[in-house]
Amino acid sequence: MVKQDRAIRTRNNILQAAAKIFEERGYQAATISEILSAAGVTKGALYFHFGSKEQLALGVLHGQDQRFVIPHRVCKLQELADEVILHAYRLQTDPMVRAGVRLTMDQQAEGLDRSGPFLRWSEVCRERLEKAQAQGELLPHVIPAVTADVLVGTFAGIQSMSQAVSDYQDLRTRASDLLRHLFPSIAVPSVLANLDFTEARGESVYQEILHTPHPQPDAP
Amino acid sequence: MVKQDRAIRTRNNILQAAAKIFEERGYQAATISEILSAAGVTKGALYFHFGSKEQLALGVLHGQDQRFVIPHRVCKLQELADEVILHAYRLQTDPMVRAGVRLTMDQQAEGLDRSGPFLRWSEVCRERLEKAQAQGELLPHVIPAVTADVLVGTFAGIQSMSQAVSDYQDLRTRASDLLRHLFPSIAVPSVLANLDFTEARGESVYQEILHTPHPQPDAP
Repeated sequence: MVKQDRAIRTRNNILQAAAKIFEERGYQAATISEILSAAGVTKGALYFHFGSKEQLALGVLHGQDQRFVIPHRVCKLQELADEVILHAYRLQTDPMVRAGVRLTMDQQAEGLDRSGPFLRWSEVCRERLEKAQAQGELLPHVIPAVTADVLVGTFAGIQSMSQAVSDYQDLRTRASDLLRHLFPSIAVPSVLANLDFTEARGESVYQEILHTPHPQPDAP
Repeated sequence: MVKQDRAIRTRNNILQAAAKIFEERGYQAATISEILSAAGVTKGALYFHFGSKEQLALGVLHGQDQRFVIPHRVCKLQELADEVILHAYRLQTDPMVRAGVRLTMDQQAEGLDRSGPFLRWSEVCRERLEKAQAQGELLPHVIPAVTADVLVGTFAGIQSMSQAVSDYQDLRTRASDLLRHLFPSIAVPSVLANLDFTEARGESVYQEILHTPHPQPDAP
C-alpha cells in the first residue's frame, strides 16, 4: 500500500511539472528533459508512468477534466451555470486546470488531439440540458446538443480573451457576462428570473463542495 | 513608382510566408530563417521591412485586421452580424486571416502582445452597437462595451472549437448558432425578427463586397 501511495505521488509530481512546462513553453517547444528536471524524478520513473510527451499532455488534459462534482440543484440550468462559474473560478486558482485549458487552446499543438476536452465538456452540458428540458426549463426551440456546443465554445473564447487582456483577472466578470447573454435564449422566463450568475458564486460553490462530505468507499 | 510596387509585393510575399510558418509551427517555434526560405527573399530584404520576429507577427496580426468594409445597412445589428458572418467565411477561405487568428489565440506566444486584435475587434463591435442603440435597436439593459467584449470573446472560442473538432469545416454553422444564441439578449423583438444569420450569408456578403466599386483615390 505504501508503495502504491508513493507511485501515485510520483505520478502527480510528474503531472504538475508537465503542466508547468507546457504552460510556460507550449506543447511544441516543451521537452521531456525540461519536465524531468522540473519534476526531480529519474527518467525511468517518468517513462514508467508516461511513454511519451503526448501521453504527458493527455494526462494534463485529463487532469483538467477531473471535475469537482457540482452539488445537486432542483433547477438543472442552475447546475449548468454553476459548472461554468466554478470552472472560471478554478481556472483563476488552479495551475493544473489552467495548463489543461492552454493545451486545449494550443492551435499549434501538432499531433495532439485537442478535440477531447471540447467534446467531453459538450457531453456534460448536453446531459444537463436534456434533464432541464425534461423538467420544462428550456424554451421550446432549444436543441440541447447545439446549445451545449455553443456554451463550451463560447466559454473557451471568453477565457482566452481574459488571459490575453488581463491574465485572468477579469475572468469571473466575463463568465458572468457570458451567462447573462446566453441564458435568455435558453431558459423559460420563470426559470431565468431565479438563476444566479453573480461573480461571487464561483467561490461559494467551491467552498460548498469542499465542505460536502464525499460518499465513502465501500467498507471492507 | 515601379520600385514602390516591387517593395509592396516583397512585403506581401514576406507576410504570406510568415503567416504560413507561424500557422504551421507556432510563434515560439518559428524562426526567421524558416520564414526567409519560405519567402525566397534575402535577409537584407526581410530586415528592410521587418526588424524582428515580433514585428513579423504584428504584421500578420495587422493583416487579419485589414477588414473588408461591410456594406452599409439600415439596421446596424445586421451590419454587426454581417461582420461576424463574413469573418467566419474569410477564416475558412483566407490563410492570412487564419494565421492572424491563430497567433491571437496562441496562449504560449511569450513576448507577443495578443490583446491588440481582441481590443480592436471589440472597438469595432462597440461602435456598431452604439449606433444600433441610438436607433432604438437594442434592449434597454444592453451596455455596448460589455456586449462587444462578449461577442468578440465568444466568436474567438467558437472558431477555436471548430478548428479543433472539424478543421473549420463546421465554422459557418457554429457562427450561425452563436448569433442565434446571443442576439435575443441584445435586439428588440421587431429587429430580431428581421435579422439574417443564415449560413449562406457569409459568401453572399463577400460577393457583394467584391462587386461593390471601391471609392477611387483622388485624381492627380
